[in-house]
Amino acid sequence: MELRGDVYDHNCPTRVIANHATGRWGSLALAKLLDGTKRFGELRREVTGISEKMLAQTLQALERDGLVRREVHPVIPPRVDYSLTTLGTHAAKQISELFGWIEENLPNFLAAQEEYDTRQTGNV
Amino acid sequence: MELRGDVYDHNCPTRVIANHATGRWGSLALAKLLDGTKRFGELRREVTGISEKMLAQTLQALERDGLVRREVHPVIPPRVDYSLTTLGTHAAKQISELFGWIEENLPNFLAAQEEYDTRQTGNV
Repeated sequence: MELRGDVYDHNCPTRVIANHATGRWGSLALAKLLDGTKRFGELRREVTGISEKMLAQTLQALERDGLVRREVHPVIPPRVDYSLTTLGTHAAKQISELFGWIEENLPNFLAAQEEYDTRQTGNV
Repeated sequence: MELRGDVYDHNCPTRVIANHATGRWGSLALAKLLDGTKRFGELRREVTGISEKMLAQTLQALERDGLVRREVHPVIPPRVDYSLTTLGTHAAKQISELFGWIEENLPNFLAAQEEYDTRQTGNV
């Protein structure tokens, strides 16, 4: 493959794609979709703390990048399903692995934070 | 290990740690530090597009989480080095792998974006 991006070039499209895939909400939405196809409302409930507007923006960006598939079913009321594409599944697995590792290491992170805070107080 | 976080609980500290590690600038800084110890100014140049203030905030958050080590050398002018901790190295490797995959797949992402944009125009 000849065309290769560079996330360290802030004019490269991969910089924006990386932001979508690893960003605050995009990463959580992708990893959550590893469970399987979900409706908008389900994602909204499961990615706690996200607003409706932000979820819509997040999913639209991921759809445009080819990471998420959006299917509108012509029923009343309309049903909209979101699922991972092949590209999306790959990205989601990597993100989910990182999240799992962060979750497992919570005690180590808390210890580091406590040590940092003590050091800061000690310096005053 | 008994204590395990949950990034889907927006009150869990791992949600914030995940944001630091995978966020817009934290992810780029971590992956760049895989090259080895760097000074603030080097990182500022290599993570293109980041402001001085944002880099300082990013590094401070990563240091507090125990992902980055900051060393101040008592020389004139003062020299401040940043490097990855053991925790940070693990996170950085996973992020760097994802970035590499995104870079390789640039053509696929561009094709998806073009298809999406054509579909949107077609719908008007």
